[in-house]
Amino acid sequence: MHRTKVRVVEDVLDANNTIARANREDFDRESVAVVNLMSAPGAGKTTLLEAVFREGLGDLRGGVLEGDVQGSMDADRLAHLHVPVVQLNTDGGFGGECHLDANMVRSALPSLSLEDLDLLIIENVGNLVCPAEFRVGEDVRAMVCSVTEGEDKPLKYPLMFRACELVVVNKVDLLPHLDFDVDKLLHNLEAVHPGVAHMLVSARTGEGVGGFREWLMHAAERERERAPA
Amino acid sequence: MHRTKVRVVEDVLDANNTIARANREDFDRESVAVVNLMSAPGAGKTTLLEAVFREGLGDLRGGVLEGDVQGSMDADRLAHLHVPVVQLNTDGGFGGECHLDANMVRSALPSLSLEDLDLLIIENVGNLVCPAEFRVGEDVRAMVCSVTEGEDKPLKYPLMFRACELVVVNKVDLLPHLDFDVDKLLHNLEAVHPGVAHMLVSARTGEGVGGFREWLMHAAERERERAPA
Repeated sequence: MHRTKVRVVEDVLDANNTIARANREDFDRESVAVVNLMSAPGAGKTTLLEAVFREGLGDLRGGVLEGDVQGSMDADRLAHLHVPVVQLNTDGGFGGECHLDANMVRSALPSLSLEDLDLLIIENVGNLVCPAEFRVGEDVRAMVCSVTEGEDKPLKYPLMFRACELVVVNKVDLLPHLDFDVDKLLHNLEAVHPGVAHMLVSARTGEGVGGFREWLMHAAERERERAPA
Repeated sequence: MHRTKVRVVEDVLDANNTIARANREDFDRESVAVVNLMSAPGAGKTTLLEAVFREGLGDLRGGVLEGDVQGSMDADRLAHLHVPVVQLNTDGGFGGECHLDANMVRSALPSLSLEDLDLLIIENVGNLVCPAEFRVGEDVRAMVCSVTEGEDKPLKYPLMFRACELVVVNKVDLLPHLDFDVDKLLHNLEAVHPGVAHMLVSARTGEGVGGFREWLMHAAERERERAPA
């Protein structure tokens, strides 16, 4: 019985990976760099994207695919800044799926006007477990980890912290008011994902946001260089 | 195909409910009140329980079943306070399950010494989606929502906020340093779960923790009164 269960799970992930590869081919064909942005609920992904898009991306054309169980509050916030944004809700299932998968992202492709984008940021459902298990066709994965969540999170949700090429430590403006030790967080991060890039930011005050903006622009420029002329 | 998928999901939840009922019968037989405590990662469930157990529960005997994807950091913190605690890890699956289900809790029953408990608090995996979908045999469900997560969470994760008999709003000591409107949160909460009980606390300073402690003790006393002589 147990073996049967594992088999089913593997099939689900196999099927997901097949669709993720198809998504990636479609993104590559249009030379769109795709970032899968993940975090716990309320870590500040949308506020961070607002701060990035307020500055703009130079001559790069950015858009957002917004994943939520229900509603379009985050998409509305970004649309206010004239960012092209498509909402994807996961509540078709029982009570709502806790992550985006490749097939959900595939269903949004016709709405995305890929030919008008250089960079697509996929804002995943707020959750530190399952989003890390499902590739959606992205080039890179980044996560936002807020200092209000405690230093122990890399040890408690290691797969998420291992799955990312970048960890953005957010809400550093609150550090003077918290019992939070940044060195301890970075030590725990190093333990589960040695050498992973990280940056300290406050999406609210703008501190450090420029570094994340450059990281995004660099991802888009890499994709542009990779593309056939 | 879509219909088949829904069918499978319903079967999973049916099977879960059957096992949850069996768990509840076992808890009832020993007159143990069971609270399923849920939240997003880092909302402060463990810190809240530490504050409660530091004060004690009068003559009531309390214990904790600690659910985590991996590790036993929270269980260790509670064991330090001489709280009987059993660790349940969900990482047997692919990358780790994002919630406790009734069968996982059932597997922990032999370790729990129910006959020595009046109150069992099940600290669920930090996640605002799936834990709300799986009953585990509890009498009541409570969730912790931190003010650092933003006022929009009831609208974005309505099932979780609807599933609970109590919403504990934590980290109110940080309110002076946040752009957070408590009235807006309570308005959103009322919109998705009219009339649900809530309390404002700071697990860190102890503010309001007495109210949650009384709520837990009241749950245990109700169970004791209900029990056959």
